[in-house]
Amino acid sequence: MPVTATAIDPGTSRPRSWWGWGYTDAHPDDAECVEMGALLPGTLARPLPIPRVADLSIGRPGVTPPPSLAHLVTADPEARASHAMGKAYRDVIRALRGRPGRIPDLVARPTADQEVADLLDWAGEHAVAVVPFGGGSSVVGGVEYRGDAHRAVLSLDLTSMDRVLEIDTVGRSALIQAGALGPVLEGQLRPHGLTLRHFPQSFEFSTLGGWLATRAGGHYATVHTHIDDFAQSLRVVTPAGAGTSWRLPGSGAGPSPDRLFLGSEGTLGVITEAWMRLQERPRHKTSASLAFTDFRRALDAVRALAQSDLAPANCRLLDPGEALLSGASHDGSSVLVLGFESATAPVDDRLAVALDLARAHGGIGEAPQADRGTPADEAVGAWRSAFLRMPYLRDGLARMGAVVETFETAATWDRIPALIDAVRAEVGAAALKATGHEATVNCRLTHVYPDGAAPYFTVAVAGRPGDEVAVWDDIKAAATDVLHRHRATITHHHAVGRDHRPGYDLQRPAPFALALRATKSALDPHGILNPGVLLD
Amino acid sequence: MPVTATAIDPGTSRPRSWWGWGYTDAHPDDAECVEMGALLPGTLARPLPIPRVADLSIGRPGVTPPPSLAHLVTADPEARASHAMGKAYRDVIRALRGRPGRIPDLVARPTADQEVADLLDWAGEHAVAVVPFGGGSSVVGGVEYRGDAHRAVLSLDLTSMDRVLEIDTVGRSALIQAGALGPVLEGQLRPHGLTLRHFPQSFEFSTLGGWLATRAGGHYATVHTHIDDFAQSLRVVTPAGAGTSWRLPGSGAGPSPDRLFLGSEGTLGVITEAWMRLQERPRHKTSASLAFTDFRRALDAVRALAQSDLAPANCRLLDPGEALLSGASHDGSSVLVLGFESATAPVDDRLAVALDLARAHGGIGEAPQADRGTPADEAVGAWRSAFLRMPYLRDGLARMGAVVETFETAATWDRIPALIDAVRAEVGAAALKATGHEATVNCRLTHVYPDGAAPYFTVAVAGRPGDEVAVWDDIKAAATDVLHRHRATITHHHAVGRDHRPGYDLQRPAPFALALRATKSALDPHGILNPGVLLD
Repeated sequence: MPVTATAIDPGTSRPRSWWGWGYTDAHPDDAECVEMGALLPGTLARPLPIPRVADLSIGRPGVTPPPSLAHLVTADPEARASHAMGKAYRDVIRALRGRPGRIPDLVARPTADQEVADLLDWAGEHAVAVVPFGGGSSVVGGVEYRGDAHRAVLSLDLTSMDRVLEIDTVGRSALIQAGALGPVLEGQLRPHGLTLRHFPQSFEFSTLGGWLATRAGGHYATVHTHIDDFAQSLRVVTPAGAGTSWRLPGSGAGPSPDRLFLGSEGTLGVITEAWMRLQERPRHKTSASLAFTDFRRALDAVRALAQSDLAPANCRLLDPGEALLSGASHDGSSVLVLGFESATAPVDDRLAVALDLARAHGGIGEAPQADRGTPADEAVGAWRSAFLRMPYLRDGLARMGAVVETFETAATWDRIPALIDAVRAEVGAAALKATGHEATVNCRLTHVYPDGAAPYFTVAVAGRPGDEVAVWDDIKAAATDVLHRHRATITHHHAVGRDHRPGYDLQRPAPFALALRATKSALDPHGILNPGVLLD
Repeated sequence: MPVTATAIDPGTSRPRSWWGWGYTDAHPDDAECVEMGALLPGTLARPLPIPRVADLSIGRPGVTPPPSLAHLVTADPEARASHAMGKAYRDVIRALRGRPGRIPDLVARPTADQEVADLLDWAGEHAVAVVPFGGGSSVVGGVEYRGDAHRAVLSLDLTSMDRVLEIDTVGRSALIQAGALGPVLEGQLRPHGLTLRHFPQSFEFSTLGGWLATRAGGHYATVHTHIDDFAQSLRVVTPAGAGTSWRLPGSGAGPSPDRLFLGSEGTLGVITEAWMRLQERPRHKTSASLAFTDFRRALDAVRALAQSDLAPANCRLLDPGEALLSGASHDGSSVLVLGFESATAPVDDRLAVALDLARAHGGIGEAPQADRGTPADEAVGAWRSAFLRMPYLRDGLARMGAVVETFETAATWDRIPALIDAVRAEVGAAALKATGHEATVNCRLTHVYPDGAAPYFTVAVAGRPGDEVAVWDDIKAAATDVLHRHRATITHHHAVGRDHRPGYDLQRPAPFALALRATKSALDPHGILNPGVLLD
């Protein structure tokens, strides 16, 4: 397979941005940026220019691969620039300000396990750091190299390994290579009437291997919230050897081998393929939304729903700010978006019970008269469109010098109300202190559990021109601190990467830290795999 | 808390058997044993006598605890004998033949974390093996010591740590000490209207810590089949220090710390307490059974149910032999036992859809007219009673010189029919070769998944008098071999212990084996924790 340096999306042939979210043809134009900026007092009058790779100082690679591996590796500046960072606000603004993270020396695109193993062998011998790279949509500094402890940095791009290799229609499973982007793998499953149905916001720009390595959250709001449960077996190539777990529907033979690599973020090995549990496409769907004048009562409604066995596929609660921004409400009410889906039986009864439950806690809303598209359902569609557009708008606001980012967490229900209040207050205060401007801090619940929920926060404020990274780091430090004091996880489904290390180190139990360090030494004896992520 | 040497059940005040299953007052008497033996050609004419502790040669302990720990430790022969083994057939017959496993030198009953840590410190300094012990119901050699690499053996009985320490009614969770037996913890939850609803066959005789350490299977046939999903946070005391994971409903911060200790079987640390996710008691229940003249079609029916989203709480398929033995059918048909339960809404509709699905695959059965106890429901009750009585009957048959044991596994659906056929044929052949008698090999499916199922096999055959252990070991070797060739797990929910090591070592992926060994060295540097389990 030839090495392609330009970032053209393999499925759509649309150009991918090297510095910002998604497709360049979906980026807001300058006029739109100005329009958005006007909503945030204190932002720039004109957008920052779109950064160009040619303006970066990209040196010669500090290492040369052996001839046997040369065909897998490129030193092309575009390729290297587009593998330098993920897609957090912090990454985008660094690119806009011409101060990206360390550019990798080389980008490798292996096409088979053996090539991955060979690259790891070579890197281990030459003290080359290896940063596994899927779709590059990390928002936690998971795909960049920091520091200078290694002689060179190799970005290991898995997207040339993107095939569905085998399908078991009896047991509804498929063996899929880790580098397949969401649409690429779904496209190969569709002819078989099957689907993985894992739809993170980054679906178009993230890979199966990335989802597994970061324990990604999908669109299911309940029960199977993370990709973890859909992994039947993993193949992992480590510097100390490769291995594949058996395809098993369930097992009690020792600690789960797969659960050690799920969430390992490329620090213990490279996930190269996985047998995944699939589903039939849903034949029955329904959705509705309810308004709440009181956010606390809406929280109670969501808790009641999460503690029922109704298992809504969608159960998203938008606070008034979030509902306003997405167009789901305009009167200051909170909005609960409910959705049910099934390949087995109609779901109208489940929605009816759910609506009754929500109304008992003050929810206001009609049952939809039919399937999607009814008036009661408008908030659902409005919210979905806004959801997919959000990262593009974030980048547009970044061009206006704004500081706009999200972070998510999870905590038990007893802590949720105080946690949300505290985040609003303390993160807002930190933003004000850092910028002199009032910040918008909105909240939605994205995934809910019988014992707790996952609040997702959005912060937007005008930055100090040129100092946006420092402003965000101050705000993020305040967020980390408030989450820690409320015993809320540093991340529900965005992974740890390098940006979440301070919070992660505080919450990880000491015996598990010892176990992880010992495992790292055993599997990655030269310490080349994604250095700085999860562990030092 | 005083050390009690006699094994009186704390909840019921009924006497516990030191050598066999459960309560001694529930053991079949001699006449019943003879009656059962008559059903298996070749068994003894009269039952083996009930073994007495006084007949064992129990030496003086090879080690003396320091005065500071003496009050936690006993060398009482009854206590030591009852902690020498688990409750597998292999254990029972060894006791009956007067050849139990190595008797531990001491039994300790700590009442607090610090005492556990102190005992581990002392044991580490003096090369004393520590075998964590909950209810002692292991059927895989998980609670005995084998070999002589250690100076002495301490059985660490956790059942004095049996309190529910804290209840969060908002998030429906409880902090429970690991030594609480099933009825002991449910009794403390009941006044709060909450339940863990984890009902393994050993419910009365196993502890929360044992369930967590072995990834026990509960009564839920679908979705939450193992205890794993109900663990919110674990506290683990290791020789290298203690730690507690945060109470989180979900998290994506690195690999799950809890999943490393779930299934660690006392080799990495001692689980001393856990926050567990609870449920309301179900308000709606219904069940029904269907008969199938064709087992293969019954398998298809179960697969269809498992791949639906109906989530039956009970979905057990009994093959003709199993159905006959339990009284669920007498005409050679297979029986599918279905049950639904909910605290939210009536479940009759879900049962109706399920029955339709099963009938479409040849199932014959009426919908129940009302709740439990209707004629259509008789098979359910018959099977449940037989289920709880089974281990007692096994011991009665053991006294007649029979070899009677179960083993369970799991595999993907594409492998299930051939796997079940192969186990029947090969295990039957091994039993015939070892004994000269035709064996009964029955099968039921206990837990089912969209991608596979967990078959549970029962073997019964007359043994060679005095050589029953060797006979069983031959049969088990054949079972291990056939499971391995069919890539079926060595255990779905009975754990690995020492008995399943040959199968476990074959199926564990090499990188995970390296990780586990490294973790063991880091957390248990003196190698005192449950030596021989999972690892050498």
